[in-house]
Amino acid sequence: MPHWTTLVAEKKQRQLKSIPQEWLVTPPPLSTLDVTGFPESCGLLSAREIEITNTSVDVLLKRLASAEWTAVDITTAFSKRAIVAHQLVNCLTEIFIDRALARAAELDDYLKKTGKVVGPLHGLPISLKDQLCIEGLETTMGYVSWIGQYAEKNAVLVDVLIECGAVPFVRTNIPQALMWPESFNSVFGRTTNPHNVSLTPGGSSGGEGALIALKGSPLGVGSDIGGSVRIPSAFCGIYGLRPSYGRVPYCGARNSLEGQDSILSVFGPMTNSLSGLKVFMKAVVDSKPWLKDPLAVRKKWDEDEYELADHGSGKDLCFAIMWDDGVVVPHPPIRRSLEMTKAALQKAGHKGFSRLFPYRVVLIEWAVVDWKPIQHKLLGEIAWDIWNAGSAEDFLITTSVTGGITAYQLWQVQKLRQNIRKEYMDHWNATASETGTGRAVDAIICPAAPFAAPPHGKNRYTNYTTVWNVLDYPATVFPVTTVDPTLDARDEKDLPHRFYDQFDQDIYEMYDPEKFKNAPVCLQLVGRTLEEEAVIKMTEIVDAALAAAK
Amino acid sequence: MPHWTTLVAEKKQRQLKSIPQEWLVTPPPLSTLDVTGFPESCGLLSAREIEITNTSVDVLLKRLASAEWTAVDITTAFSKRAIVAHQLVNCLTEIFIDRALARAAELDDYLKKTGKVVGPLHGLPISLKDQLCIEGLETTMGYVSWIGQYAEKNAVLVDVLIECGAVPFVRTNIPQALMWPESFNSVFGRTTNPHNVSLTPGGSSGGEGALIALKGSPLGVGSDIGGSVRIPSAFCGIYGLRPSYGRVPYCGARNSLEGQDSILSVFGPMTNSLSGLKVFMKAVVDSKPWLKDPLAVRKKWDEDEYELADHGSGKDLCFAIMWDDGVVVPHPPIRRSLEMTKAALQKAGHKGFSRLFPYRVVLIEWAVVDWKPIQHKLLGEIAWDIWNAGSAEDFLITTSVTGGITAYQLWQVQKLRQNIRKEYMDHWNATASETGTGRAVDAIICPAAPFAAPPHGKNRYTNYTTVWNVLDYPATVFPVTTVDPTLDARDEKDLPHRFYDQFDQDIYEMYDPEKFKNAPVCLQLVGRTLEEEAVIKMTEIVDAALAAAK
Repeated sequence: MPHWTTLVAEKKQRQLKSIPQEWLVTPPPLSTLDVTGFPESCGLLSAREIEITNTSVDVLLKRLASAEWTAVDITTAFSKRAIVAHQLVNCLTEIFIDRALARAAELDDYLKKTGKVVGPLHGLPISLKDQLCIEGLETTMGYVSWIGQYAEKNAVLVDVLIECGAVPFVRTNIPQALMWPESFNSVFGRTTNPHNVSLTPGGSSGGEGALIALKGSPLGVGSDIGGSVRIPSAFCGIYGLRPSYGRVPYCGARNSLEGQDSILSVFGPMTNSLSGLKVFMKAVVDSKPWLKDPLAVRKKWDEDEYELADHGSGKDLCFAIMWDDGVVVPHPPIRRSLEMTKAALQKAGHKGFSRLFPYRVVLIEWAVVDWKPIQHKLLGEIAWDIWNAGSAEDFLITTSVTGGITAYQLWQVQKLRQNIRKEYMDHWNATASETGTGRAVDAIICPAAPFAAPPHGKNRYTNYTTVWNVLDYPATVFPVTTVDPTLDARDEKDLPHRFYDQFDQDIYEMYDPEKFKNAPVCLQLVGRTLEEEAVIKMTEIVDAALAAAK
Repeated sequence: MPHWTTLVAEKKQRQLKSIPQEWLVTPPPLSTLDVTGFPESCGLLSAREIEITNTSVDVLLKRLASAEWTAVDITTAFSKRAIVAHQLVNCLTEIFIDRALARAAELDDYLKKTGKVVGPLHGLPISLKDQLCIEGLETTMGYVSWIGQYAEKNAVLVDVLIECGAVPFVRTNIPQALMWPESFNSVFGRTTNPHNVSLTPGGSSGGEGALIALKGSPLGVGSDIGGSVRIPSAFCGIYGLRPSYGRVPYCGARNSLEGQDSILSVFGPMTNSLSGLKVFMKAVVDSKPWLKDPLAVRKKWDEDEYELADHGSGKDLCFAIMWDDGVVVPHPPIRRSLEMTKAALQKAGHKGFSRLFPYRVVLIEWAVVDWKPIQHKLLGEIAWDIWNAGSAEDFLITTSVTGGITAYQLWQVQKLRQNIRKEYMDHWNATASETGTGRAVDAIICPAAPFAAPPHGKNRYTNYTTVWNVLDYPATVFPVTTVDPTLDARDEKDLPHRFYDQFDQDIYEMYDPEKFKNAPVCLQLVGRTLEEEAVIKMTEIVDAALAAAK
């Protein structure tokens, strides 16, 4: 058996060969931290290709369906931009543009002959995290030992997307074994953040985050067991959704911690246009995944729920803001983004933009009304206890985690988790007495992380996302602003007395406005289990309020 | 601390005191095996009380809603009959008729004052398995060590049922720790089968089965982790439903194997009138249990699915019959019940009773078309490996099970299970090419056990039910016939060559028509995950066909 470095070198050669040589470019010097402008300035993309790659998902689909744009043209444009992106931030793993263009040509033919689209995603290029097996391609998931393992069939979700008319064209980078919130592995190396390459794009779906931020893909699929869709979405400044368990099929994908039945990884969409969230979820759910994946939930797409039937038809929404989680105080830019969002919602509500934003918005400041996020620290500990229960054996490497526990010990953690899920539900229900709407709080708005994208190796706290995995609440990420040193100065007067503990203070002291300059700042919107429809709609409402306030 | 026998004696005294002394009767001599006639012949119940207790659930609810019958009268009638039943077969644990009558009086008052019912179960007495905690009552679950533990609040399902207007009035017997298919424990002793007291009523919801068979309750709640609703339903000759995980709230009930997240126990209805299944499920699901129990699935009651929207609107159904599971050959009465059901469906289909049974029924004999139930033996082994993973420590007693395994080992079993769930789903989907309907088989009809109710201590094989728990398929039980020695002779000519192995032969050799005489024979109808609506409707169709064929 060859040395592992030889295997990696061969694999990288194969990757290089999968790139059309005429699409190789000379990236800017390493001193250029923000590379987001490069794809449009490098000269490889035509004006029309730039227009195509800057178009939102809903408009792309309309132009594809009307044959105004062809699938081949759109696939070509995004492929070129993806290859440029890869040369900037090392975001891709498998590259299969030839297949994609062949499929795109089939789709164009079908539309021409029949006048009909193949499905709701007809002709849309889609990027996939490096877990979603495709027949004939490797899925290494960053493991050197998996190089050379070619899939015999597609993951169920890949089949579903293809049936819907989507065009998979690239797969994207991750950390080895997935369970890490940055994106480095020994096969493909490290992905960087296009807004500032000295910062991490997050992980484990970091390749998706970086690619989509550079508009090298209109829509991608990440996975999220503790924040792996939302952290890279937040760090890269795009939209993302972590659905509840079972809404999107997982069967047939590669994964770590297989057989762990308790806190499950889920697939979810990542996109630079908000319309992509609904487009993806509706298409996938309408495909009846419960007939293809035994763990998929038999729950049809519910347009009434999207129209907020369970939330007073959206006429009287009450968002709750969680300013911090009681464990780690967010950095100044995150605080500012919460204040901006609150102000935007109030403005929208009070001024009543009757067409743009026809909702009266009531705000509760949870911290102000003596609301504290209960048990967040314990929820995070439960997650790691469950994942670590058998992970040392699963990873087959020396890790820093405690060795395995017995099944009985695992059950005790799972029981504790069930009890806290009930406690949290009761806590949420109890807000009904405070909202003035007759309902409990409709959604929680909170940080996705206590910081914007940190320097590589510094993403040390993921509990702002992980708690919602433990509770199985769906959560979106949406962009609000970017780090601005003039607005986001360190708050020295508060140091050190306001911190919860030394860890909290250490996280805060990592903050330096100049280092984080230009990093996107995003927030989360959190709803109730299996309420993806309403969560997407409420995110659209908040996004519209933010746009209107600008 | 007193000796355990003292604790039990005191507990039994408390139970005796909870029975109105004027309702004590002199049961028939022990030589009377079939005691089902006794409640009506014993003289305690008036003619009207006999009429009430012989009335089906849907009619009871109508007469309650119209105030033709009062909740107090109905509760009194069922309470009397339940107390008689208890004296015959030892089916009750907690008895709280005073509370029930007080609640019934409130409901009558409410209806009188407002003209409205409290909810869809207004005034209906309901019996509950001895897991469903009620504030102020003990829930021993058969453990001597839990005597004296009084609940501080109701289980979520108890609250839901009360909000719906139901009147809980008794709780019912079980085996200690629940994980056993008969109903004996050291606190309350053994429940017997009212059709033949030398036989077991099954378990673990055996108290419910025996009580409802004697019409001491119109509707009860059992739980089912491996067959514990369906086995006693089948052995006692009543209807039962094992719903999918999360359709009925479990939160706040006592249970064994707590924290086991993989093959979950579920609550389901047991009733002697088929209308009870839909009435119960619709009421519970309409109460939005997902806002009360974090594990409840946010899936509304779907009347379209009940009308078989996913099954060609019921115009063209295809049932598949599984004659045996490839592990244990069913006894002759079970075989006969399958043949009766097949004939009834064919008759209904061919003759086209246009109003009673307007469905064309296509039958596939799975065994005949080379269909074999795949992996049933392994599915059963998986169930026990998962439950036993931590059960030795959970039960805190010496058991025959292997000691605990590590969490990693547990994950390997769970992974195997996930793979087989997918394999079974694909197997089901593949029948689409054979049905002639364009769809896969609509439901499977199969034994609920390889035998009718066996003698006490002989219920040694539960895999006819357990496989569907492992796969999470909803399944009903419905009555077909009773054991008739003249029709169900032993089939000596087949012995021993047709058996799968010695265990299979041992099960067969237990069969003696005289010993099993009069035991009810029921079958299962199995559908797809979270398809309770359609499974109930298809059971109604099969039940109507059987009635029409008689």
